[in-house]
Amino acid sequence: MKIKVAVVGATGIAGQQVLASLDNHPTFEVAALAASERSAGKSFADAITDPDSGIRRWYAAGSNPAPEILALPVQDAKGLDLRGIDLVFAAVESEAARELEPIYARHVPTVSTARPYRMEPDVPLVIPGVNLEHLALINEQKRRRGWRGFIATLPNCTATGMAITLKALEPRFGIDCVMVTTMQGISGAGRDLPALDIVENIIPYIPREEERVQIETRKILGHLGEGAIAELPIRLSATCTRAGVIAGHTEAVSVGLKKPASPEDIIAAFQEYGTEFTRLGLPSSPRHLITVHRDPMRPQPRLDRDVEGGMTTSVGRIRPDEVLPNGIKYLLVTHNTAMGAGKGAVLLAEYLAHAGYLRG
Amino acid sequence: MKIKVAVVGATGIAGQQVLASLDNHPTFEVAALAASERSAGKSFADAITDPDSGIRRWYAAGSNPAPEILALPVQDAKGLDLRGIDLVFAAVESEAARELEPIYARHVPTVSTARPYRMEPDVPLVIPGVNLEHLALINEQKRRRGWRGFIATLPNCTATGMAITLKALEPRFGIDCVMVTTMQGISGAGRDLPALDIVENIIPYIPREEERVQIETRKILGHLGEGAIAELPIRLSATCTRAGVIAGHTEAVSVGLKKPASPEDIIAAFQEYGTEFTRLGLPSSPRHLITVHRDPMRPQPRLDRDVEGGMTTSVGRIRPDEVLPNGIKYLLVTHNTAMGAGKGAVLLAEYLAHAGYLRG
Amino acid sequence: MKIKVAVVGATGIAGQQVLASLDNHPTFEVAALAASERSAGKSFADAITDPDSGIRRWYAAGSNPAPEILALPVQDAKGLDLRGIDLVFAAVESEAARELEPIYARHVPTVSTARPYRMEPDVPLVIPGVNLEHLALINEQKRRRGWRGFIATLPNCTATGMAITLKALEPRFGIDCVMVTTMQGISGAGRDLPALDIVENIIPYIPREEERVQIETRKILGHLGEGAIAELPIRLSATCTRAGVIAGHTEAVSVGLKKPASPEDIIAAFQEYGTEFTRLGLPSSPRHLITVHRDPMRPQPRLDRDVEGGMTTSVGRIRPDEVLPNGIKYLLVTHNTAMGAGKGAVLLAEYLAHAGYLRG
Amino acid sequence: MKIKVAVVGATGIAGQQVLASLDNHPTFEVAALAASERSAGKSFADAITDPDSGIRRWYAAGSNPAPEILALPVQDAKGLDLRGIDLVFAAVESEAARELEPIYARHVPTVSTARPYRMEPDVPLVIPGVNLEHLALINEQKRRRGWRGFIATLPNCTATGMAITLKALEPRFGIDCVMVTTMQGISGAGRDLPALDIVENIIPYIPREEERVQIETRKILGHLGEGAIAELPIRLSATCTRAGVIAGHTEAVSVGLKKPASPEDIIAAFQEYGTEFTRLGLPSSPRHLITVHRDPMRPQPRLDRDVEGGMTTSVGRIRPDEVLPNGIKYLLVTHNTAMGAGKGAVLLAEYLAHAGYLRG
Repeated sequence: MKIKVAVVGATGIAGQQVLASLDNHPTFEVAALAASERSAGKSFADAITDPDSGIRRWYAAGSNPAPEILALPVQDAKGLDLRGIDLVFAAVESEAARELEPIYARHVPTVSTARPYRMEPDVPLVIPGVNLEHLALINEQKRRRGWRGFIATLPNCTATGMAITLKALEPRFGIDCVMVTTMQGISGAGRDLPALDIVENIIPYIPREEERVQIETRKILGHLGEGAIAELPIRLSATCTRAGVIAGHTEAVSVGLKKPASPEDIIAAFQEYGTEFTRLGLPSSPRHLITVHRDPMRPQPRLDRDVEGGMTTSVGRIRPDEVLPNGIKYLLVTHNTAMGAGKGAVLLAEYLAHAGYLRG
Repeated sequence: MKIKVAVVGATGIAGQQVLASLDNHPTFEVAALAASERSAGKSFADAITDPDSGIRRWYAAGSNPAPEILALPVQDAKGLDLRGIDLVFAAVESEAARELEPIYARHVPTVSTARPYRMEPDVPLVIPGVNLEHLALINEQKRRRGWRGFIATLPNCTATGMAITLKALEPRFGIDCVMVTTMQGISGAGRDLPALDIVENIIPYIPREEERVQIETRKILGHLGEGAIAELPIRLSATCTRAGVIAGHTEAVSVGLKKPASPEDIIAAFQEYGTEFTRLGLPSSPRHLITVHRDPMRPQPRLDRDVEGGMTTSVGRIRPDEVLPNGIKYLLVTHNTAMGAGKGAVLLAEYLAHAGYLRG
Repeated sequence: MKIKVAVVGATGIAGQQVLASLDNHPTFEVAALAASERSAGKSFADAITDPDSGIRRWYAAGSNPAPEILALPVQDAKGLDLRGIDLVFAAVESEAARELEPIYARHVPTVSTARPYRMEPDVPLVIPGVNLEHLALINEQKRRRGWRGFIATLPNCTATGMAITLKALEPRFGIDCVMVTTMQGISGAGRDLPALDIVENIIPYIPREEERVQIETRKILGHLGEGAIAELPIRLSATCTRAGVIAGHTEAVSVGLKKPASPEDIIAAFQEYGTEFTRLGLPSSPRHLITVHRDPMRPQPRLDRDVEGGMTTSVGRIRPDEVLPNGIKYLLVTHNTAMGAGKGAVLLAEYLAHAGYLRG
Repeated sequence: MKIKVAVVGATGIAGQQVLASLDNHPTFEVAALAASERSAGKSFADAITDPDSGIRRWYAAGSNPAPEILALPVQDAKGLDLRGIDLVFAAVESEAARELEPIYARHVPTVSTARPYRMEPDVPLVIPGVNLEHLALINEQKRRRGWRGFIATLPNCTATGMAITLKALEPRFGIDCVMVTTMQGISGAGRDLPALDIVENIIPYIPREEERVQIETRKILGHLGEGAIAELPIRLSATCTRAGVIAGHTEAVSVGLKKPASPEDIIAAFQEYGTEFTRLGLPSSPRHLITVHRDPMRPQPRLDRDVEGGMTTSVGRIRPDEVLPNGIKYLLVTHNTAMGAGKGAVLLAEYLAHAGYLRG
């Protein structure tokens, strides 16, 4: 029997990406949908279709909602019936997440793509394949809060791509400092970004993004201590910009290492990274956590974001950095709405199921 | 009487930008045009119009060639008649420039936007308003080579924007190191960049660009020594990418200073910079070499590249850098085909005329 | 003394385009600004700047609001003080226009870019230079409604470009039927169009647009009768799509004429059209209502939208149509936010002043 | 044993799309590659990789060449060894096709995506599922020319999408006339279209395209006569433009029918069309030749081009046309490099194999 999941935020972009990632899923079954009060009581089909114009709001490009999903009733997220639900995907805006997630987590494991609880000491902030050992915080969280369920969070999509590559380097060479400039895809901004702002343009500022990258990266790379994560004490400078690219974040990363390493050392570290995790063969897992390019024209977001289902991080142009100590630099492309959001959440849930964190 | 100029490369993008910048010019008059053998003997109108389809190849968007320019005959660049010509604008590809520029410079002052002679010890590599004192090399050059004319070069367009801002900081605070990631406009690549490569995409590599930025910046910021420039010995790390923006290079710059400076110190340095030059009121000069934005959403290439005729460098998001020593970081937008190419060449020529370098 | 105008909708795109068009205007002076209640009481600078982030919302690209405009107080549009105001520019959304415009027009001439009153029998729907004789409706309107002022409206921006060209043909050749497919710029949709929808895409539907084009074109081309316009009874089929172009509507038009005409006849009709109006030399007037291209690669929105200040309609590819009777077809580019909106409104106001419709 | 095919033009875009479509193909095996003399003698990997920079020219986005393809030697197209080859895919430019295709067809069946022989009376111009009965010309062709093989051609990609929909209507309602305006994707122009021309722009002219659409559509819709096709005598007016879309042609079609039909009649005709063909289940076949949308915001090229592997034609906004007799209009999206080129060629080859046209 499949694991029964509820998707909260089903009428929004993040929720629909979770739904698309759950389509024909071998172990999960979408048993409930929830959204804001406005949609409650309607079928999912009705909730996303304008009755006058017939225009349908389905945002997961390249897929269509399955008929059985279209027929499901949408519940009010505040009153979601959790009976029979084994797992909640909470894919909602920050404010809603702050209110809703503890309501669910009191009873049921909750995987969240939202910001509010990421930096709580007893809440794991996890990238599948990277710092799954941080899930040990779940026991502390349940004990401390008296919950039967828990909250497990995924990081900011920009932090995700970079953290995967840094984690591949940290154990071998140590990391002293990191500088990153990002050129982020539009889908990370959802539907709030007007076309007028970004077509044939670069926007030099993404509110709060640089701080998120700095703070979350240190926690992701941190080491599990007594009921909390000891953050990795690295200096980190981020400049986050928006480019006219539909999806895929491109990041120019320079790393100052504690030990010298040649580009070939770095390539080896990237290529050998994460095999223990990918060998599990979880349904949404990439075959390689990191894909290395030697063609200097790669990675490119349009060509590389969808490789391995959007779940691998593509890295190229690995070369020495002339300024940082033991400096190395490279560019990466990460799919912000696949590994960096909805599908990453599904992969985390797959691991939670594999590792026995669901159902009891 | 106006100064008579020849424009070599008149059928190409760079040459046409020079021509557009010379339209209705108060002191220069286009007296001759030259291009490759293929166009020689035709009127300029015929040289840029396909006879079968009527399609015209004029690349300086937002302008049209003046009727008197359309009527001019195009000469073969290799045999350009220099009689009566006071100044040559050489706006051709590298290989052609290597061959042609010495031919012209033997007789006539030659302003070049091309690469081959930029790093020659006796050739000035100049940004108007930034390092005009380097023009003193001209005497050395004429003496050493026995030329009546000379070559004066403009830098790579990507180096230009950054060097302007660095030069505003260097005398006050000293510069230890620089890191830059660029998101460059399409027009920098001319017509060789296929649409298929860049639409809805980022290209992570621009051949030779990072080296040019590193090498040329050190020369531009260098100090005039005995018949040569003593380059400024800074460490410099550049990552150059191409974005789907028609024109305007966006650059994310981090600078390690020798002395600490607050963002307000930096803003003051930028705002006070270059007034001695802009006060000359040369026809193509901006009113400010640097324009500072406090709105964090600026500068943007589409909104800011054309400010002050594309001749000012727009800077914003000035804030501390967390990694570099006395680190400061900012983003800038520079117009690669205005200040960074054709119109910059015209401004340099205006200064050469002003300072008495033309006509003997 | 200048004519004192109020701009209603000053915090929105359309209003800011009017403001930009009034910058340094020789005969109009912006004496009052109005917007929704939310902005009332603030200076214009404060009304358009987010106090926390410093982000400023000024949408008229390529310009900045003048200091004296930034200092003006913003009034509540519902309670706009009309004392001393000679003319109101109403540049607001449909619903607001429906309520506000009669309030202003009771006292003061009101030029509107909005939809609600365009098709009222006694309200002129006018393109400057095209059907100014329709302004004779103003007397009927004042009489019938007992107003001291009046409402004069501008058409939908898509109808504008096509109607200009049709009106150049109608008197000479007669028009039987028209088919048009448009590829419209993003700015026509304001800030409501998400980047996610249009980047690297075509949207096949613009709600209500095709009907507007059909209905309004017939009225614009109509003949002034007794207190109303007798619409031109032409069959008209429109397909309106949105393309990833910042500004400028491209329209592929096929016209069935009543009399046969060669492409050269059509070119002559276009080139000779509107000279009586353009000879008035009104401040915002183009030098030519229609600009004809013989290069088959033109017009293009990016290259041609800004020609003559965005106020000319650029036409090219004039050739026979194989299907319609006496068919002729061509493409045109019209600047939707210049001639098609704010600047067209200013040009209309200039004509109203010239023709004695203002001040009594 | 698989059918052995040669791909000529393997270093170009069209050829690589054929190669990508043949990847892991159940019945075809790539046994030989050919290209121009310049590449001859190299491995395919070497032929597409710049030795200095490591840049690889593989243009079929979303795929990578298989290792066994990379290892194949590239032959000179003029001397391609046809021994053991059952079928040639000729995916080369017009001029090369004119010379090469008869050389191959003398011995081996040749499927061509190029223009030169499409309009020859004895050469079938075929869209799979639409006019396969035209393949009967092959016997006439072989007989008349004394060839053991033959040439079968695919139409221009713009004609393809429209012809599929017209053929669904013609038998039921008859077609009197057709008007079409296209907004074509960049990939149709290959790598020759400079980014500078099309970014944030519309290009109003595609040389020769409108004539191709007009001529080829009449042949595709024609009826098989005595050793030749009797073209369908319809009036057809086409305007072909280029939009800034990577792939997918959007076409706004108006059809004058011989018998009246309601939108629902048209929808039924589209939905019921081609099932005999799709039921064959050929490896590259779509499940539906035509996909009908009722959401007026569809089809969109970015969302719909890849549906059913790029092999279905997506149609929407079916509604009456106000001008044409018994007029009906709709928009369609067709994938120009899938059904409209390489993958369409593979599908045609699959049918040729199925119908016994290969191997004797």
